[in-house]
Amino acid sequence: MKHFTQFENKSLADSLIEKALFYKSNPSIDNALGEGKRIGCIFLNPSLRTRASTQIAAINLGLEPIVMNMDKEGWALEMKEGAIMNKGTVEHIKDAAAVLGSYFDILAIRAFPSLTNKIEDLADFTFNQFVKYSGVPVISLESAIRHPLQSLADMITIEENWAKKESPKVVLTWAPHIKAIPHAVANSFAEWAIGCGHDLTITHPQGYELDESFTHGAKIELNQSKALEGADFVYVKNWSAFNDYGKIVSTDPSWMLTEKHFEQAKEAKVMHCLPVRRNVELSDEILDGKRSLVQEQAKNRIYAAQSVISKILG
Amino acid sequence: MKHFTQFENKSLADSLIEKALFYKSNPSIDNALGEGKRIGCIFLNPSLRTRASTQIAAINLGLEPIVMNMDKEGWALEMKEGAIMNKGTVEHIKDAAAVLGSYFDILAIRAFPSLTNKIEDLADFTFNQFVKYSGVPVISLESAIRHPLQSLADMITIEENWAKKESPKVVLTWAPHIKAIPHAVANSFAEWAIGCGHDLTITHPQGYELDESFTHGAKIELNQSKALEGADFVYVKNWSAFNDYGKIVSTDPSWMLTEKHFEQAKEAKVMHCLPVRRNVELSDEILDGKRSLVQEQAKNRIYAAQSVISKILG
Amino acid sequence: MKHFTQFENKSLADSLIEKALFYKSNPSIDNALGEGKRIGCIFLNPSLRTRASTQIAAINLGLEPIVMNMDKEGWALEMKEGAIMNKGTVEHIKDAAAVLGSYFDILAIRAFPSLTNKIEDLADFTFNQFVKYSGVPVISLESAIRHPLQSLADMITIEENWAKKESPKVVLTWAPHIKAIPHAVANSFAEWAIGCGHDLTITHPQGYELDESFTHGAKIELNQSKALEGADFVYVKNWSAFNDYGKIVSTDPSWMLTEKHFEQAKEAKVMHCLPVRRNVELSDEILDGKRSLVQEQAKNRIYAAQSVISKILG
Repeated sequence: MKHFTQFENKSLADSLIEKALFYKSNPSIDNALGEGKRIGCIFLNPSLRTRASTQIAAINLGLEPIVMNMDKEGWALEMKEGAIMNKGTVEHIKDAAAVLGSYFDILAIRAFPSLTNKIEDLADFTFNQFVKYSGVPVISLESAIRHPLQSLADMITIEENWAKKESPKVVLTWAPHIKAIPHAVANSFAEWAIGCGHDLTITHPQGYELDESFTHGAKIELNQSKALEGADFVYVKNWSAFNDYGKIVSTDPSWMLTEKHFEQAKEAKVMHCLPVRRNVELSDEILDGKRSLVQEQAKNRIYAAQSVISKILG
Repeated sequence: MKHFTQFENKSLADSLIEKALFYKSNPSIDNALGEGKRIGCIFLNPSLRTRASTQIAAINLGLEPIVMNMDKEGWALEMKEGAIMNKGTVEHIKDAAAVLGSYFDILAIRAFPSLTNKIEDLADFTFNQFVKYSGVPVISLESAIRHPLQSLADMITIEENWAKKESPKVVLTWAPHIKAIPHAVANSFAEWAIGCGHDLTITHPQGYELDESFTHGAKIELNQSKALEGADFVYVKNWSAFNDYGKIVSTDPSWMLTEKHFEQAKEAKVMHCLPVRRNVELSDEILDGKRSLVQEQAKNRIYAAQSVISKILG
Repeated sequence: MKHFTQFENKSLADSLIEKALFYKSNPSIDNALGEGKRIGCIFLNPSLRTRASTQIAAINLGLEPIVMNMDKEGWALEMKEGAIMNKGTVEHIKDAAAVLGSYFDILAIRAFPSLTNKIEDLADFTFNQFVKYSGVPVISLESAIRHPLQSLADMITIEENWAKKESPKVVLTWAPHIKAIPHAVANSFAEWAIGCGHDLTITHPQGYELDESFTHGAKIELNQSKALEGADFVYVKNWSAFNDYGKIVSTDPSWMLTEKHFEQAKEAKVMHCLPVRRNVELSDEILDGKRSLVQEQAKNRIYAAQSVISKILG
C-alpha cells in the first residue's frame, strides 16, 4: 500500500481492521517503527478528531508528527496547471507539495470540496494535486469526495459490535442540517460498507441521491421507516444534493432520528462521524442513549490511523 | 488530586510549592513519569506564557503535549444542555469533551468569561462543562473565574522571596487598564494568598469590589496609600467591576504604581501575572527596577505546571 | 557563534556549509546534542518551508521545538521603549522576550518589515528588540532586512552544483511581482554571495536599486541580457523599491525569465527561494526544467538550520 485514499479491496480492509484492533489492545507495541521518520499533517480546513487522532497514531508508532494549518499559518495555494499567478494565490501546489514531500516521509492531507465546482470536486482535484506532486505516500484526512480514515474507523466499530456470522443490515440515512455539507463521509461509508460485504441500504429524501459510483451495490429506499426495518446499524449523516450540486433541497425535520424511529429496529446501534448537530441531525435521546456508538467510532480513529500509517511504513 | 481547578487546602498547596521548587532545581528528574501518556492543551482564547510553560512542563515529565486552538483550528462549541443546534455552533461540548477525554490522559483547558453573562461566568460554565463531560483529570489554564496555575506560581515566587517566620503583608492592588478585564487572576490570587496564610489586603477604587466568596479573610482598604503601608509584596492587577458586571467604572491613573507609592513600603516587591500594560497598569520604573518579580513569576509557571501534572500522574 | 542573524565572515560561512553537507548525509548523527533543550520558534508572519525545516532540524538534533504564532495564538506586542500602552498592543517586547528567553535555550524569530517605516525597518527594529531582551541565542527566520538561513541554504546549493576551481558567475535578477515584497532575501543573498567570494552581478529595472550596504562588491548592470551573459547561477527574486521605499515602480513582464533569456548562458542554473509566483516571476518552462535548483534549495533549508543550531549548541 503506497497511498491511503479510498477503499481498495476486502482483503486489505480486513487486514487494516485486524491491525487496528491489535493496536487498540497494544498501542505502543510498534513504537520504534517510525523512528527517525516524520509525517506532515497538512490542514486546508478545520479539524478536531482527525487532527488529534492522527498525531496520536503517529506518536504511538514513534513517528514525529508536524501539523501545518496551510490556510492560517501559510498562504493560499494555486492548484491550476499553467496558472499565471498574478492574483491571490502565493505558491503553486507543484512547488509546495514537492517541498513537503522532500521534508516528510508521509504526508496526510485534508482538503474539502468547493461544493460549487462539481467537476473539480469529483476529480478530487486539490487532494490529487498533492498526491501528484509530493512524491511520497499520502494519507487522506478527508478529501472532496472521501473520508477513508473515518470509514475505516466505522468498519472497526461495526466489527467490534457484531458477533453474528451473517452480514449486518446497515442503513445509511440522510439527516437534516442547516448548512450545505460535503458528500465525503457518505460516499466513503457506502464504499467501505459495500466493499466489506455489509448489507447496505441508503435512505434519503428525493433530491439527495448520492453519486452512483459510490453506492453501486446498495439498496436505495426513499421511505425512511421501511429502510430502517430490521436495521442492525444506522449511520446518520447529512449531505447536500449531488445532482443539484451543493444545494439544500430539503431540511425536513421528520428525518431526524428519535427513539420512535426504531420501532422496527429495536436493537439497532446508531453511528455518526461527529461533529453532530444535536437535535437537528440526531436527538439527544439517541446520542445519549445505549444505541449510540459515536464515541467508540471517535476513539477508533486513533487505531484506524495507526493501522494505516503502520501499513505504509511497511 | 484529580483535577486542578482551584485552591483546595494549605497542605496540598504546600506540597505543590515544595514539589515545584524541587523541579526548578531538577527539571528532568521525573522525565519518565509521563511515558506513553498525553496531555491535550485546549485553548479557547489566546495565550503566551501558559501555552509555552504547560508544554515545557509536560515535556519535562516525558508527557506528550498536543495543543489545540479550538477557536481557530476547530469550530465553535455548543455549551447549553438540550440545545437545538441550528445556529453557529458546530459541535456540542458533550461530544467534543468526551472524545478529547478518550484521546488524552489529562486535559488542560483555557476558557475565559463572557463578562456579559454573570450567572454563567460565576458558574464557570464552559470550563465545568469540559470537566463534566471529559471524564479525565482537567487542569485549568484559566477559567472564567480562576487562574490557579498563575496563583501557584505566585505562591512559589513569594516563598522564594520571603525568609522571615511571620507571614508577609501582601497587598493586591487594582490598576488602571483600557479594557474590561476578567476577575480570574485577582480572585485566584486572593483565594491562594489567604489559603496559604498570608496577611492579605485588597485595595481598589470604589465600584471594583471583588466577589466576596474569594476575598473572605482579606482586609479591604479603599485608600491605596494606607493599604500599601508596610507591604512586603504588592500584586498589581486590573479587573473590571463585579457588581456592575464587566464594566469599567474608573480608569483613575493615580492608581498606577510608581516609585513614589512605595514611601511607606521601601522594601516591597512588586508582582504582576503578565501581560502588563506598561505605563498604564505599572510604570516602566517599577517593572525595570529591583522591586519587580514579574520575570520570576513567569519562570515559575513552568514548575507550577510541572508540579501539578506530576501530582495528577501519581 | 552566539546569534545567527547575518553573514559574519567567510571562514564561519565555510564551516556552516561544510557542517550542513555533513548533516545532509547523516541527519541523525548528532541526535543527542540538544537533549533536554528547547528551541522556541516565534512567527510574527506566515511560513511554510521555514516553519517545517526549522522544526525538522531541531528534531534531528534531539532539541524540542515549540512553535508559537504570536500574531494568531498570542497578541500584539509593543516594540517602542517607554510606550504608554493604552492602545492595541497587549504586551511589551521587554517582558515577552525576557519570558521567552527564560523558557527556551534558543529562540528563532520571523519578523517581516513594515515596508512603510524605512528607518525602523533598516534598524531591524522588531527583530533586534527580541535579540536585545531575550538574553539567549537568537536565530533569524527572516527579519526586516535579512533572511540568512535562506542564504546559507543557497550557498550550500551553489557549493553542491559547482565543481570548478574558479568562482562561479552569479547573477541576482529582479523579477516582476504584483505585490510590494521585502528586500530581505535579495539583501542577504548579495551579502552571502559576495562574502563567500562569488562573482556577483545584480540586475534590475531602474528604480529598484538595493541598499548599497548589502551590495558593495557586486557589479550592477541594468541591462538584464548583458548581466545574464555567461552566468553560472541566476538567482531570481522580486523586491520593491528601496529608494522610493516599499513602492512598486515597474512590473515590466519582459523581466520574467524564460528559456530565451538563456541564449548567452546555456548552462546556467536557476535559483529562487520560494514561494514563487509562476509565470509572473519565473516561467513554468524554467521552473519545471533542468535549470531549476529551487527544490534543492528548499531541501537544504533543513541542513542549513541544523548546521546553525548545532553551531550554537556548541
